Amino acid sequence: MLAEIKGLNEECGVFGIWGHKDAAQITYYGLHSLQHRGQEGAGIVVTDGEKLTGFKGEGLVTEVFANGVDNLKGTGAIGHVRYATAGGGGYENVQPFLFRSEQGGLALAHNGNLVNASGLKHQLENQGSIFQTTSDTEVLAHLIKRSGYLELKDKVKNALTMIKGAYAFLIMTETELMIALDPNGLRPLSIGRLGDAYVVASETCAFDAVGAQLERDVEPGELIIINGEGLKSERFSKTINRAICTMEYVYFSRPDSNVEGINVHTARKNLGKRLAIEAPVEADVVTGVPDSSISAAIGYAEASGIPYELGLIKNRYVGRTFIQPSQSLREQGVKMKLSPVRGVVEGKRVVMVDDSIVRGTTSKRIVKMLREAGATEVHVRISSPPIANPCYYGIDTSTHEELIASSHTVEEIRSIIGADSLAFLSTEGMLDAIGRKYEGEFRGQCMACFTGKYPTDIYEDTILPHEKG
Amino acid sequence: MLAEIKGLNEECGVFGIWGHKDAAQITYYGLHSLQHRGQEGAGIVVTDGEKLTGFKGEGLVTEVFANGVDNLKGTGAIGHVRYATAGGGGYENVQPFLFRSEQGGLALAHNGNLVNASGLKHQLENQGSIFQTTSDTEVLAHLIKRSGYLELKDKVKNALTMIKGAYAFLIMTETELMIALDPNGLRPLSIGRLGDAYVVASETCAFDAVGAQLERDVEPGELIIINGEGLKSERFSKTINRAICTMEYVYFSRPDSNVEGINVHTARKNLGKRLAIEAPVEADVVTGVPDSSISAAIGYAEASGIPYELGLIKNRYVGRTFIQPSQSLREQGVKMKLSPVRGVVEGKRVVMVDDSIVRGTTSKRIVKMLREAGATEVHVRISSPPIANPCYYGIDTSTHEELIASSHTVEEIRSIIGADSLAFLSTEGMLDAIGRKYEGEFRGQCMACFTGKYPTDIYEDTILPHEKG
Amino acid sequence: MLAEIKGLNEECGVFGIWGHKDAAQITYYGLHSLQHRGQEGAGIVVTDGEKLTGFKGEGLVTEVFANGVDNLKGTGAIGHVRYATAGGGGYENVQPFLFRSEQGGLALAHNGNLVNASGLKHQLENQGSIFQTTSDTEVLAHLIKRSGYLELKDKVKNALTMIKGAYAFLIMTETELMIALDPNGLRPLSIGRLGDAYVVASETCAFDAVGAQLERDVEPGELIIINGEGLKSERFSKTINRAICTMEYVYFSRPDSNVEGINVHTARKNLGKRLAIEAPVEADVVTGVPDSSISAAIGYAEASGIPYELGLIKNRYVGRTFIQPSQSLREQGVKMKLSPVRGVVEGKRVVMVDDSIVRGTTSKRIVKMLREAGATEVHVRISSPPIANPCYYGIDTSTHEELIASSHTVEEIRSIIGADSLAFLSTEGMLDAIGRKYEGEFRGQCMACFTGKYPTDIYEDTILPHEKG
Amino acid sequence: MLAEIKGLNEECGVFGIWGHKDAAQITYYGLHSLQHRGQEGAGIVVTDGEKLTGFKGEGLVTEVFANGVDNLKGTGAIGHVRYATAGGGGYENVQPFLFRSEQGGLALAHNGNLVNASGLKHQLENQGSIFQTTSDTEVLAHLIKRSGYLELKDKVKNALTMIKGAYAFLIMTETELMIALDPNGLRPLSIGRLGDAYVVASETCAFDAVGAQLERDVEPGELIIINGEGLKSERFSKTINRAICTMEYVYFSRPDSNVEGINVHTARKNLGKRLAIEAPVEADVVTGVPDSSISAAIGYAEASGIPYELGLIKNRYVGRTFIQPSQSLREQGVKMKLSPVRGVVEGKRVVMVDDSIVRGTTSKRIVKMLREAGATEVHVRISSPPIANPCYYGIDTSTHEELIASSHTVEEIRSIIGADSLAFLSTEGMLDAIGRKYEGEFRGQCMACFTGKYPTDIYEDTILPHEKG
Repeated sequence: MLAEIKGLNEECGVFGIWGHKDAAQITYYGLHSLQHRGQEGAGIVVTDGEKLTGFKGEGLVTEVFANGVDNLKGTGAIGHVRYATAGGGGYENVQPFLFRSEQGGLALAHNGNLVNASGLKHQLENQGSIFQTTSDTEVLAHLIKRSGYLELKDKVKNALTMIKGAYAFLIMTETELMIALDPNGLRPLSIGRLGDAYVVASETCAFDAVGAQLERDVEPGELIIINGEGLKSERFSKTINRAICTMEYVYFSRPDSNVEGINVHTARKNLGKRLAIEAPVEADVVTGVPDSSISAAIGYAEASGIPYELGLIKNRYVGRTFIQPSQSLREQGVKMKLSPVRGVVEGKRVVMVDDSIVRGTTSKRIVKMLREAGATEVHVRISSPPIANPCYYGIDTSTHEELIASSHTVEEIRSIIGADSLAFLSTEGMLDAIGRKYEGEFRGQCMACFTGKYPTDIYEDTILPHEKG
Repeated sequence: MLAEIKGLNEECGVFGIWGHKDAAQITYYGLHSLQHRGQEGAGIVVTDGEKLTGFKGEGLVTEVFANGVDNLKGTGAIGHVRYATAGGGGYENVQPFLFRSEQGGLALAHNGNLVNASGLKHQLENQGSIFQTTSDTEVLAHLIKRSGYLELKDKVKNALTMIKGAYAFLIMTETELMIALDPNGLRPLSIGRLGDAYVVASETCAFDAVGAQLERDVEPGELIIINGEGLKSERFSKTINRAICTMEYVYFSRPDSNVEGINVHTARKNLGKRLAIEAPVEADVVTGVPDSSISAAIGYAEASGIPYELGLIKNRYVGRTFIQPSQSLREQGVKMKLSPVRGVVEGKRVVMVDDSIVRGTTSKRIVKMLREAGATEVHVRISSPPIANPCYYGIDTSTHEELIASSHTVEEIRSIIGADSLAFLSTEGMLDAIGRKYEGEFRGQCMACFTGKYPTDIYEDTILPHEKG
Repeated sequence: MLAEIKGLNEECGVFGIWGHKDAAQITYYGLHSLQHRGQEGAGIVVTDGEKLTGFKGEGLVTEVFANGVDNLKGTGAIGHVRYATAGGGGYENVQPFLFRSEQGGLALAHNGNLVNASGLKHQLENQGSIFQTTSDTEVLAHLIKRSGYLELKDKVKNALTMIKGAYAFLIMTETELMIALDPNGLRPLSIGRLGDAYVVASETCAFDAVGAQLERDVEPGELIIINGEGLKSERFSKTINRAICTMEYVYFSRPDSNVEGINVHTARKNLGKRLAIEAPVEADVVTGVPDSSISAAIGYAEASGIPYELGLIKNRYVGRTFIQPSQSLREQGVKMKLSPVRGVVEGKRVVMVDDSIVRGTTSKRIVKMLREAGATEVHVRISSPPIANPCYYGIDTSTHEELIASSHTVEEIRSIIGADSLAFLSTEGMLDAIGRKYEGEFRGQCMACFTGKYPTDIYEDTILPHEKG
Repeated sequence: MLAEIKGLNEECGVFGIWGHKDAAQITYYGLHSLQHRGQEGAGIVVTDGEKLTGFKGEGLVTEVFANGVDNLKGTGAIGHVRYATAGGGGYENVQPFLFRSEQGGLALAHNGNLVNASGLKHQLENQGSIFQTTSDTEVLAHLIKRSGYLELKDKVKNALTMIKGAYAFLIMTETELMIALDPNGLRPLSIGRLGDAYVVASETCAFDAVGAQLERDVEPGELIIINGEGLKSERFSKTINRAICTMEYVYFSRPDSNVEGINVHTARKNLGKRLAIEAPVEADVVTGVPDSSISAAIGYAEASGIPYELGLIKNRYVGRTFIQPSQSLREQGVKMKLSPVRGVVEGKRVVMVDDSIVRGTTSKRIVKMLREAGATEVHVRISSPPIANPCYYGIDTSTHEELIASSHTVEEIRSIIGADSLAFLSTEGMLDAIGRKYEGEFRGQCMACFTGKYPTDIYEDTILPHEKG
């Protein structure tokens, strides 16, 4: 499904490196491979051991760094890509944040969302702190700054005890790189090696992109400190309740990434296969919605024996400056990003595999598109359960009211989107297909958007990502 | 295969419309859907019945028209997208060309390449004409201008008798739109209807993009004149030797286009199926090189029973301002546009399906990439015959010397690219798979790049597209 | 007076150099010093002896060449700055023009206006020539191209015999630089030396800017050819009727330029002195309208004994992107480019010296401004005679109807602009003050805008500069 | 003298308005007229009574607001222009600063420099505050934020008691505009009326630019509060030791501004007259260094009877993208911003009047330039005393070591700059010429840069403006 269409957006991606003479360049390529996790803004901060230097801006990595990264000299770097909010945000909210003081600089890059940021911010402001951004991320900087401990490591640990929610944090000073993952491990984060250098990234595809080798995933509740003396792992949280975001498998991560040891393409293909078993249908062709549903569609086709075809084409050249067609032109049939392949679907019974339904508007549009291109039947198959609950951990899934599955039955949704049939994958089927081996309430995965069971506290004033900025 | 990597580039795409109040907007969306045919430049000329107004620039359609098309008022329009040459070109060569004179304006958009442009230009310059561009297209304007006939239609016909080669021409004055296709029909060109308006485009996907209906393909040797009195079809050439470019099926056109009635995705899938029959191999997974080889790979998988997987991922965010990695970083493993999916290919025998091999350098790089990601065997299967001859009709296939198949056997190529096995599709297999029903020497298709048999004369001074500008 | 306000615009400035290793850089600085002659566009063409390379664009020299001139390698160069038309023009009309053909390239830069361009263009188009621009300059290229002579020098001479009007032409091929001035010498053009290199420029201030020494002014009717064998002077016209544009002294040229041996600032100061004698007035302060009237105002003050003060200030930071105040804000008193100095004019009788009155609207606005700032009397003194006739030689003075002096007496103009008194300098006074020593009907100067006596033929279809494009 | 050349730069200019429906537009034009006070950055914050909206950027006002100010809706606004540092600064340091918190927003614009900012910042950081900028201005925001008082007015007063140095502050919330001037009144600040609206600006020229009337200057130690209930004046400091920056008269302010009731052009002309009396010389022409020394030169000429001439011309088109000539080209004589007028100075004894000498390098260059243009003698006359001490109040005068007058006698300086004679104005002469009527040690003026007597404490860690950022 198209992220830009569906309003189902990842918050961010982070990348870091320590001990490489081309730190900024490597980070550039690493961020570039994480671009799907955020297109609103990008930034890099480097250290040369004596000072932090940063550059950031709104737009794609290639746009922000159109003039290169030659001014970012140093052997340590952290970088960030930020997702596209409806209209808020702006330059100030682009990360990494870079805070300077007499005691030295502090750079921060964050993937996730803190659920108690509002309360903490209220307290900090009452104590005289001034916030420069509307980002929850800045709270951590203030907590570190106000911590009475002497060593940065202890200040950071102290600050981490006060925040709740989902976070993969990269924290860099002139002389150290710290990496922290929340006690639930809600967001993915892996470390690797590139020669002698250490690398860290939201997804393993970034390691492949820069020629690095995956070492291991960062542990929930772990604080990793890398400096001149090498890498040291500590824990800031003793209790762990592992619950990585299931949507990383279903939708967000790149197919070539491995999330906690499982290849994303393979997981998706398995979701599709299981879906074919759970919800078979007589049809002529199977098609996926590019890009994220392609793997599931291939799996569905393979398991069902119905041929897989390119029934929908995505236009690759839709950029920031694309002129949206007027309502009148859209009604005349002007397409934007997605086109049906008439030659493939005309006169055919089509199985359209998608990874999820958020508001239902896009599914409705695609079903209509396929029918207009001549499909005689359109059967929609979703490779995950219905999303009935908002996400507070960094995925922009809209509010409760906007989620079609929070107030409609599957049959009602089918009717709204105009499909001949509609089926979602079961929760058990999804767990089986992904194939992780965790026990317990969460089975190692956060499935809150499907089940409503959140692995952390959620508060009255917990802010949804899209309500920020 | 990646056009930008392979150096196998289409020359252009054209789009036109007559009789629509939003002519410029429609053309914008039409060109946008033809963007894959050329990314170097784009332009639109409109007529409001009294004067021609144009805007063009270097870059993508969305970049050139970043400020919209509101200044282009009129009910008739022609547009053009231009392919990326190595470094030549420049603003002047971006089309449509717009010539003004006392007698009125003339706008020209051309897809193809004239094989006798050099000789004609020599003659015209000796008679005192001044050329503003290095484009062969401008020759037609001078020939029209110098024609003694009174009516534009006759001037155009007269000029068309003097040019040879491949051309789909859109010619627009204040009051008329003319459409001409060369007597071999080397380049695709179709006309359609959008309500009362007429539309014309290089590919039918442009009709789908704007909500128009295909009427028919333009005939080789046909001159269509559209004006206030409607559409009139005439012929400027009595003899026809139909020979549409085969590579439009194999590589260039979008999968959702129908070329002379045949869906491109379906044709490619059939090429893959036939390839599986002609050149079977024992393997674990089939993968295609995105984007153009995906359909053939699906076909190969379907016919062979080997599962189709996403073994290679293309980075979608590589734009003009992407910083190329240094040689040293590339050697360290920094990837640019294409990444292998380790989780898919590791420990597997891989069939890598591609549509063609030009110089062999890209195939070599991909084979190496797959091996480094853990593939135990890499079997390369090409869904067309070896390209051993340059194209003079508007495809930038490099010179004779650069074409690896012009001087190497299949076994030699296999050894150079480092594959465990390599096979090309046979010419007969290709013809069967595409499934056109033409007789005669060319079977309705130009296969010169495979066979060396050119449907038109070629001269000493015929210029290859990439040698221009 | 403010050129941008008054609509009294110079057409262009030209600069050339031959035999210097930094030809493009020198031309950049030369053009920069001629920027006052045209702000719409700028361009440079260089030759390295084998090929011509050019770059041009819309905007100021510093904007067009914001990325430097390093790509323009060669030892010969010509450059051009173009004036700002109301809205026409565009990239195509920016000079130098660069024409390429089998026989080699030809670059053209032109300051002036041809009075028989329309007729010549009509002829050439009927013979099959295609014009790319709406510029009269292109006519010369076509005439050169069509000339039957073998040597370029003879082609150029042949072409020059066919054109009439005002022109300072720089013509450059791969191996030669040619310089031509019309037989009346209507536009200024000087040659100089920079070490061993030859330089040529519209104004001598360009020589000072690049450290070159003035050699002499180009002669009317002279064709200078500079190539590997040195400089050769020839004549293409035997009759000469010297008539340099008087407005170069009064208004256009920079005060630091010498026009035909006379310093412009000094000439203007003398105009002001003479004006004080011809049109004295009792007053407290003398002020000039920046920038061009400052010298005359100083002269008026010196001769009259009334103190010279800064009564009007020009805002230096008005650029292309300045937001014009709305009518409502303007009525509330929002100023744009010019502000009165209340502290200077309040309670004072002010002599406001300006160089000319075109439409009268600006004078009216300034008089009002001064009164609102507290001036008790405003006496307007103009350092040239009334402009009652349009200019066909490259100055954009508006049409007959728009020139206030073509249909109003001095007293009527005074009343319209709201001054307490108004006086213009007499023609004799102007000639004396400038101090040239020529005899004959024109006294060596074109004063057509004052007298209506044009030194060349003017035709029915002679186009005013501002009507082009 | 050219600010950009001399390195004698004003820190900033501020403008505010309250109660006008076009608040942002008016502020745009107001800032535009203050552009000479800072070209590095510009910004505007508006309030519509409910929320603050801001926009800022690096560059000129016209560049930053190239797309207009239509998005800045509200009836109150404050704006700021920032001076050009050598390379520091950046977007973050551009003002107005906009701080948001639960309690509402706070916008700050500051002209001046705080002398105890380092100490305060140290304290605040130790208490946990995080600074976002390297600007001393931010200290005030933190002090306000941390103040225990309930009402903003009291918080502001409380904060003002803690800062020392030079400051003209505009402070705006959603519902109030506050204006504060330091107890010495070191920087100029005036209030006026535009219809019913209140306006405030660093210079009165901004009132003229927007059609407003000056009401009065802001008093040292005064806090003005403007809100729905009108304007209220309070005092936060009882002691006043008036000491406005003398350089505002000599160099910084626009000639059309009145500073504490005295017109700047008139003051400068009087400085020049007095200089002619104090330091007469036999010469042929008087010339000033544009733009700031023109008035003094006119005064010198008037008092001495030597004619005033344009002996030096400034190129108006030197923008951000101007390519600096290489050393080699500069040695060949390529000029940048300033050109001598050969026709005026050749063979003449020249009096060159300038307003000040900082490092001496520019004076040296100009003297050389004049000699090369043929001046037989060059007599330098400076319309202020030698600058021998750095400024800590917001003027970037370089450090002690760089000030040529801090370690050289007048005769030594004369020799270094290569003049035939050199004279500075006496301190008494300067005071007389400006003509203010204050008594006491400072005579109402800060002359610290001349005398070394600073009206406030200066500390070990007081930071010079140019050392920031």
